[in-house]
Amino acid sequence: MRAVDIIRAKRDGNSLTREQIGWMIGGASDGSVPDYQLSAWLMAVWLRGMSPEETAWLTDAMVRSGVRVDLSAIKGVKVDKHSTGGVGDKTSLIIAPVVAALGVPVPMMSGRGLGHTGGTLDKLESISGFRTRLTLDEFRAQVADLGCALIGQTDEVAPADRTLYALRDVTATVESLPLICASILSKKIAEGIDALVLDVKTGSGAFMAREEDARALADALVALAERSGLRVAALLTQMDVPLGRTIGNALEVRECIEVLRGAGPADLVALSVELAALMVWLGHGASSLDAARTAVRGALADGSGLATFRAIVQRQGGDVGMIDQPSTLPQAPVRETLVAPSDGYVARYDAGLLGRAAVQLGAGRAKSADVVDPAVGFDLLAVPGDQVPAGAPLIAIHARTTADVDAVRPMLTEALTMADAAPAPRVLILDRLGLARSA
Amino acid sequence: MRAVDIIRAKRDGNSLTREQIGWMIGGASDGSVPDYQLSAWLMAVWLRGMSPEETAWLTDAMVRSGVRVDLSAIKGVKVDKHSTGGVGDKTSLIIAPVVAALGVPVPMMSGRGLGHTGGTLDKLESISGFRTRLTLDEFRAQVADLGCALIGQTDEVAPADRTLYALRDVTATVESLPLICASILSKKIAEGIDALVLDVKTGSGAFMAREEDARALADALVALAERSGLRVAALLTQMDVPLGRTIGNALEVRECIEVLRGAGPADLVALSVELAALMVWLGHGASSLDAARTAVRGALADGSGLATFRAIVQRQGGDVGMIDQPSTLPQAPVRETLVAPSDGYVARYDAGLLGRAAVQLGAGRAKSADVVDPAVGFDLLAVPGDQVPAGAPLIAIHARTTADVDAVRPMLTEALTMADAAPAPRVLILDRLGLARSA
Repeated sequence: MRAVDIIRAKRDGNSLTREQIGWMIGGASDGSVPDYQLSAWLMAVWLRGMSPEETAWLTDAMVRSGVRVDLSAIKGVKVDKHSTGGVGDKTSLIIAPVVAALGVPVPMMSGRGLGHTGGTLDKLESISGFRTRLTLDEFRAQVADLGCALIGQTDEVAPADRTLYALRDVTATVESLPLICASILSKKIAEGIDALVLDVKTGSGAFMAREEDARALADALVALAERSGLRVAALLTQMDVPLGRTIGNALEVRECIEVLRGAGPADLVALSVELAALMVWLGHGASSLDAARTAVRGALADGSGLATFRAIVQRQGGDVGMIDQPSTLPQAPVRETLVAPSDGYVARYDAGLLGRAAVQLGAGRAKSADVVDPAVGFDLLAVPGDQVPAGAPLIAIHARTTADVDAVRPMLTEALTMADAAPAPRVLILDRLGLARSA
Repeated sequence: MRAVDIIRAKRDGNSLTREQIGWMIGGASDGSVPDYQLSAWLMAVWLRGMSPEETAWLTDAMVRSGVRVDLSAIKGVKVDKHSTGGVGDKTSLIIAPVVAALGVPVPMMSGRGLGHTGGTLDKLESISGFRTRLTLDEFRAQVADLGCALIGQTDEVAPADRTLYALRDVTATVESLPLICASILSKKIAEGIDALVLDVKTGSGAFMAREEDARALADALVALAERSGLRVAALLTQMDVPLGRTIGNALEVRECIEVLRGAGPADLVALSVELAALMVWLGHGASSLDAARTAVRGALADGSGLATFRAIVQRQGGDVGMIDQPSTLPQAPVRETLVAPSDGYVARYDAGLLGRAAVQLGAGRAKSADVVDPAVGFDLLAVPGDQVPAGAPLIAIHARTTADVDAVRPMLTEALTMADAAPAPRVLILDRLGLARSA
């Protein structure tokens, strides 16, 4: 085979064979197909698309480019969750230990934040000492012992995806449904899971701002996961305002501990319960989705989810004192507030703008080499629907310097919408797909 | 500026600005834009196209990536010819000296053969000692002294085109009208010419086999040349059967000398006269196109074109004895014939097949690193329209070994079409464009 022929076929809108796709991805991982041919091919894929069949072959080839973790020695249906990313989206830290506490193994590999959305690894690393890099043997052993491990993708997992992603980032070929779906699912399949719950977000703080785009992504992900042999359920959820009351790594860990202690903001609790219940149900940890919801609420109320989270932190080298006393988590030296400009109702915080403001403070990355500051971020003191007088504190700004506060203030002001009447209640879950549809 | 933004704009079908195109081409020539970004951009250009304005900016940027030869010290309108390539297409060796002999300067930079079409440099190099690599100073001085130089593109001319072409070749982005047009014309403009005659070929032996594709290329080339400030005339010509009676480097040089001596095959003479007359007319060397045709025929009949060719060969280090005695040109050791399988008329030789058969013998290159054998090729002993008895010799095969003869025989048999009646006469010039339309 020759790369130029495979590029030409896709350029001309033809479907590629399983062999052609496998050969190209093999060449991406062993370096035998040079970057300039891969990038021309990626652009042709971006512009011509891929059939569901081609996308499944691409996913499979990317899984085969590395190690597929063998978790067959661990009993039960192994389940993971993937979110397409949002602002204040911290559900992984809540649901992974809760689901594990209910007896369903969760081998979770996560990513870092890039752009305005946060990343699970960055949040976990705000706990002193927490190791997100385990060997695959450590990972397997911990899932066997505790029912859950929370780590980053290791080098052995889908190496071709890393090569392709690095090229896509600099060649304007990121936003392609088949490439996005294959990238997401190849890494998940390589973890060794049997079932997957997807949280596909839409709104200003999401990767796909427009609902029709997010719905297309959700449909494509569900179809690809099914074709790849996974049991899959998906929620299409709202990410037009931030999830919960905190944005920023340590602040978000603190909020997760609140939820694991049976408290926390209603929206975050509601979405976490639904996602965790779907995982428990897919993992045969409950006889019905309703029974799963009840079990999840129980694990939040009785502290068993928190106990599992504590055990995971301990096992992965983290300072459990920070879990027991969240006030010992990293704190920012400067704390100021944004206040209400007038009497009225808080109608909306634009999630995308708040996410970018958090990056500006140092809570996230504008480019992948940036270093994240665990302590900085925002605490929403009033949330959409709250009636406030002029001058009431709305957002606590946790910053490294007052100059940083000054830099983000205009962004926060722009992100805030006040109204004279109470806004319509927010619909958090917009649709249910895959096995979630019929459950 | 960032390459990724320029790639994205073209990916989305937007027009690029002059500055964006200039920046990208600058990056291609100084290496600051890496190959993988150039190739993604080339694929986006291939699939999304470029407006005439963008194509002109691309051409200009490619010219500016290197030296534009300054021939202003040489009096007169400097004229060149470009052919899109064909089998047995050897007109450059005839018309360049003839036009120069008529007082119109011809600063001609040519290419090598690749695939089934031949290249002017390969033909010239079958003359012992002929140097196709001159410095730009030597080139300028020779055009001033003799009215003509026949050389290859130097490294100083349009270096960005070489970078892009090498990438296009391996990323399936060759056949794009704007990229083809910019590549051809940037090199011609950099020669320092004022006027250009284009020979755009169609048929099985042409780069564009289908007439509609060749016509689109011709239209695009004429429009781009006009926009770039050149006086331009173009012919759309037939390349379904080979031009003249010879295919192969030394064989073609021998045939050109026949034409320059006032003889030679009718089709080759007719096309050479028309192209040369257009050059003379564009170069203000005659008062009308008809007067130019008469002058060209005169320069073939009186030997002045041949004398100029001889002077060029001498000046560029070639063995003029080979011009004076063409039998001393390289000769192949094996000579066999293909004979007529039946009584009848020769209806057609498929030019594409004969071209590929010539490559098989070693007369051309399958890939650019191949070495060309100057002596091998074909001599068409009978041409389409000739009535022949069974067993009559049709093609003389000049080969290095008998094994080579055996390898090409089936291709020749396939290329030959016999008929019971005389075929319709061949129309050589299908259309006239640019200034040739009204002349």
